[in-house]
Amino acid sequence: MFGGIEAGGTKFVCAVGEESGTMKDRIEIPTTFPEETIAEVISFFKQYSIKGIGIGSFGPIDVNHDSSNYGYITSTPKTKWKNFPFVQTFQDAFGVPIGFNTDVNAAALGEATLGAAKGLDSCLYITVGTGIGAGAIVHGKVLQGLSHPEMGHTYVRRHPKDSYLGKCPYHQDCLEGLAAGPAIEERWGNKGIHLKHKEEVWELEGYYLAQALMQYILILSPKKIILGGGVMKQEKIFPSIYKNLKELLNDYISFPEMSTDIENYIVGPGLGDNAGVIGSFILAKEALEIE
Amino acid sequence: MFGGIEAGGTKFVCAVGEESGTMKDRIEIPTTFPEETIAEVISFFKQYSIKGIGIGSFGPIDVNHDSSNYGYITSTPKTKWKNFPFVQTFQDAFGVPIGFNTDVNAAALGEATLGAAKGLDSCLYITVGTGIGAGAIVHGKVLQGLSHPEMGHTYVRRHPKDSYLGKCPYHQDCLEGLAAGPAIEERWGNKGIHLKHKEEVWELEGYYLAQALMQYILILSPKKIILGGGVMKQEKIFPSIYKNLKELLNDYISFPEMSTDIENYIVGPGLGDNAGVIGSFILAKEALEIE
Repeated sequence: MFGGIEAGGTKFVCAVGEESGTMKDRIEIPTTFPEETIAEVISFFKQYSIKGIGIGSFGPIDVNHDSSNYGYITSTPKTKWKNFPFVQTFQDAFGVPIGFNTDVNAAALGEATLGAAKGLDSCLYITVGTGIGAGAIVHGKVLQGLSHPEMGHTYVRRHPKDSYLGKCPYHQDCLEGLAAGPAIEERWGNKGIHLKHKEEVWELEGYYLAQALMQYILILSPKKIILGGGVMKQEKIFPSIYKNLKELLNDYISFPEMSTDIENYIVGPGLGDNAGVIGSFILAKEALEIE
Repeated sequence: MFGGIEAGGTKFVCAVGEESGTMKDRIEIPTTFPEETIAEVISFFKQYSIKGIGIGSFGPIDVNHDSSNYGYITSTPKTKWKNFPFVQTFQDAFGVPIGFNTDVNAAALGEATLGAAKGLDSCLYITVGTGIGAGAIVHGKVLQGLSHPEMGHTYVRRHPKDSYLGKCPYHQDCLEGLAAGPAIEERWGNKGIHLKHKEEVWELEGYYLAQALMQYILILSPKKIILGGGVMKQEKIFPSIYKNLKELLNDYISFPEMSTDIENYIVGPGLGDNAGVIGSFILAKEALEIE
């Protein structure tokens, strides 16, 4: 049995199960500060005999095995978690192989193995929630180069009628600064969940997300795009994305995926809210195989 | 011996040599229309005994082996070349394995194998010339998903003082529409080569290219970025790119590659003008191995 952790800024989803996606137990633990949250995570896993743990974490994190900071959360704005030695902490507690990647890379891996992109060697998983992040599978493996991608911080063109300044502490009005949950709340004066019927909210959201998707498509050419996270539960965003993206691409890419078949190309997660934690089981399995 | 073709919109560079990069003969043939240009290419190669041919072509092209249009140039604005069966033509003429990819993917492969990114399993090669295109190596292989990337058509934010409308027939003021050679010429009323000392030309060029590089970095995280093509011979662009990119990233990615070591991270091609044609030798070798 494997342990899986989807470590988010709001909560840690922890589960035990198999890389086939079956889950024996699952718990959600609020993200407070490392000493408290991690103690609860450890006591949850201590109930079981686990042969490996996979961690999909919020970032930025250091995923470079050659680095002296491998396994750490690095320059996160969540100051209590800055420089937290995630991998070492769990190695010390359990003495089993630890797989470590970003939360969105874990989700992309889960979706490519068992979810909406099952059987494909290429996909993109994007989460739109407290932040915006994305993970990708390329040639069947989690995309990694110099570091993990940080796709949520790309710049998009502002809507001419949108005077909201943006909320990203690094880039102010990058995609995350304009379109993540906290930006929606600050711009419209209410949480997205209470703005369900306000068309202009989701039209604008689709306007920004479509621009980002255009960048991702032109740069990565994924075989499937999966959009998850709390904000994407507002299903009105999908039609707005389709409309705006078709306008932006203007038939330049002559694939049905960009026109008649766009609704099967850009989809919600096949594994629902468990993409990340199931992907973490697979990270655990990979770590065990390498060991 | 292998044959290599770098098929560009202005000229075809053809060469014979080995995948180690040694070149026995090389010729440049103007790109006119298929019957004429291809006849010259074929008679050049007919002088030699070649065991495989690699083609790095302008695009869009169909690189999907499962497609009925595999090996074709597809929806190019160069109408005479639309639906040209590139691979079939050379298979018929030579009966040897044919490797086929984009010109920029060939150049990326050349640079990753023998050039500025030698020894790295990840790099990005961008050409800025008549058009703007990019190819990438990810996990040691040419990046391909649904199709090949089309990175030159990504949108960037306009400079507030730039009133030039843009030249892309599909997207008007996308990166290529604002920053490729023809856009420089139309905006400033003279070819780039005659604008060498006009600081504002290269400052603006760096302003746009840095935005595109930020997207590429956040989405792909390449280990090395190589900028080639005619426009990049104006060396003043590099300092402008470094300055603008550092401002845009604002220390979000805490790697020396984005700050103190940026001049070794974003570089010119190690293989000079031969990156594409040498990469084509490698495409030929790969095609021979698969056969």
